[in-house]
Amino acid sequence: MNKELAWILNAIEAAGETGMKEDVYWRATYTAQDAAVVELLQSYMEEGGMTVSFDAAGNLFGTISGTEAEGIMAGSHRDTVRQGGKYDGMLGILTALRAAASLYERYGRPRRTLKIAAICEEESSRFTTSNYIGSSHICGLVTEEMLQVTDDEGIPMETAMKEAGYLQEPLRRECEELSHFVELHIEQGGVLEAAQLQTGIVTSIVGLYSGEVTFTGQQNHAGTTPMYLRQDPMPVCADFICKLQAWAMQYQQELVCTVGKIVAEPGNANVIAEKVTCTFDIRSENLQRLEEAEAILQRLTEALQGTVSVALHIACQEPPVQLDADGVQTLERLATARGLSYRKMASGAGHDSQVISQHVKTNMIFVPSVSGISHNPNEYTKPADIEAGYLLLKDYLKELAWN
Amino acid sequence: MNKELAWILNAIEAAGETGMKEDVYWRATYTAQDAAVVELLQSYMEEGGMTVSFDAAGNLFGTISGTEAEGIMAGSHRDTVRQGGKYDGMLGILTALRAAASLYERYGRPRRTLKIAAICEEESSRFTTSNYIGSSHICGLVTEEMLQVTDDEGIPMETAMKEAGYLQEPLRRECEELSHFVELHIEQGGVLEAAQLQTGIVTSIVGLYSGEVTFTGQQNHAGTTPMYLRQDPMPVCADFICKLQAWAMQYQQELVCTVGKIVAEPGNANVIAEKVTCTFDIRSENLQRLEEAEAILQRLTEALQGTVSVALHIACQEPPVQLDADGVQTLERLATARGLSYRKMASGAGHDSQVISQHVKTNMIFVPSVSGISHNPNEYTKPADIEAGYLLLKDYLKELAWN
Repeated sequence: MNKELAWILNAIEAAGETGMKEDVYWRATYTAQDAAVVELLQSYMEEGGMTVSFDAAGNLFGTISGTEAEGIMAGSHRDTVRQGGKYDGMLGILTALRAAASLYERYGRPRRTLKIAAICEEESSRFTTSNYIGSSHICGLVTEEMLQVTDDEGIPMETAMKEAGYLQEPLRRECEELSHFVELHIEQGGVLEAAQLQTGIVTSIVGLYSGEVTFTGQQNHAGTTPMYLRQDPMPVCADFICKLQAWAMQYQQELVCTVGKIVAEPGNANVIAEKVTCTFDIRSENLQRLEEAEAILQRLTEALQGTVSVALHIACQEPPVQLDADGVQTLERLATARGLSYRKMASGAGHDSQVISQHVKTNMIFVPSVSGISHNPNEYTKPADIEAGYLLLKDYLKELAWN
Repeated sequence: MNKELAWILNAIEAAGETGMKEDVYWRATYTAQDAAVVELLQSYMEEGGMTVSFDAAGNLFGTISGTEAEGIMAGSHRDTVRQGGKYDGMLGILTALRAAASLYERYGRPRRTLKIAAICEEESSRFTTSNYIGSSHICGLVTEEMLQVTDDEGIPMETAMKEAGYLQEPLRRECEELSHFVELHIEQGGVLEAAQLQTGIVTSIVGLYSGEVTFTGQQNHAGTTPMYLRQDPMPVCADFICKLQAWAMQYQQELVCTVGKIVAEPGNANVIAEKVTCTFDIRSENLQRLEEAEAILQRLTEALQGTVSVALHIACQEPPVQLDADGVQTLERLATARGLSYRKMASGAGHDSQVISQHVKTNMIFVPSVSGISHNPNEYTKPADIEAGYLLLKDYLKELAWN
């Protein structure tokens, strides 16, 4: 085992070295950094006895053919946010790759076909889109229209794909051959670390209700406009944030609620703002709470109409998805058998699993993030925790493919 | 009279034409726009029989010598903010100039010397400084050190002054010869218009307590960080704004309180902010209220310390200044005699009068601003209101200089 962990730790560093774009760690999709990691992963897959292939969207697969047609897919995404870290995504690919190769070496040809996936474009690392293009393509959800989205330089995704050597064949649906998908991922939060647990077995991926609220009043001189003549959006927005927070704290075990961005225009200390806009981002694994969030937002924005006008704009409304309950049970049993500490938990972040789970039985394993840090070069997971997650993933793949 | 009003309206337009810097109305100090209006005002002063002079700081004076040494000064500032209007400052210069010239023409040499002042750099139009350089120089308050402040291009004020032809003689104190200063100015607020009054007789200029409060927490993922693990500065800042507003509304007849700027960092919808900073700007003519504001800010920032740290930074702490009470009484008597409607009021904005009043008996007359708009190309005062203010200023100058 120590040898397998050492391989993973070494591979994390080797993959990390391919991700520097000038001074910034950033593996955007269909770039030189992406091509470099694909080359590296391809060599790892070949060393592990896998057959390498690509799909039209640029997902990379390493396949170990089983005796039955039905397949198991394991992996994660290979792109990173700008100034991201080495673990987010990549750890899920490398642990799955190592586990499959080691199991193959030990047990020979599996019953079910095992496909290790290095999925592209999960992070909107290059194209601003809420579609997970790589996993969506696996599920047959990518349309020609989606490929027209452009990057910051105006290059359409379609062009970028072709320039990277992909899209040589028509878009297709991959997932019909699959019975299960499993993704190991860093937690990206501090729950496991705070509870001193080795692994998280993900039961669901939270739904999201997000958008922004704009409060429009009247710009005026801060000194010469008496309070009774003001249409000042700032205190109204502050009141909104306080009330939204008070509502959220009632259900703090069941949801998270964030106002991460606020902009006042013109934004001068001695000018009453014309307009204040703040975002909201509410996530819950409980659909009822998200529906209540929607009602609260409606009620608050209506109640605060008055000297200033209040406009609600919804950006995203995604229901929570449940991961496979049988898989959760199996993972619990395997963790217990290994003596690994774990907790069942919801994922607060979106993942490729969110897309794939709607078509294929899907499960996720979380490993702790030190200080909950991710999307940051300081992202880190301790080797002992990587080992725990790896063992659970390997046991699960063995059970799925070799049983 | 119609002739005098027509002259003023014409002169406002002529002066306005000198203030365009490319497409923007902006007469910054010691620039080509400033030189152009100085040339125009100089010609008006000469036409009015005045002796033209400059001081070292670049203030322009038109003097009508009286039989006594003691002098009266009237005027306002000639610079404008970027994208400012034609009335702010300039109306006070032109009405004083016209009044003095008309009185001189009608009544001959005054008893007291009358100095019409076109004061430079009141608006921090070019140099970011809280010193009113023009009026401060009149009061002998300008130091060599103050002239080292630089503009956006790094040019020190001293260099700019010399390049504009000023600072040929040492800095000096002008105000010892003066018994009174009077400034007509647009209100820059909506109080007079809302109350349908022609003029405001200013009793005081409000004091200012301003600065910013920084709330520092911990940046984290909005989805994966449960509420109980958060150090989110946003709701704390919102709570602060609500509480400050609630306090201010208790005294809404006696003070104004504005949070005009708020910045969240990094400021992403799906990231818990690391830091939120908001400004505060509290003004009152009542010193006790400003002292209470100071106490409230201290108390709130201490009370809100907790999961986030709160830091208070004071930018400005200026006590209110009282204008000359005898002058206010005289202006009331003159307004009543003319049948002009007026109200006594505090000025919510700072003015050259604020500096000069600390050395010389000072009074101000306000005229209504349509919709309270100023620091804006749409700044406007109706001719009938200009006439009312002009008549009051003229009556007052006659009483001060010719009685």
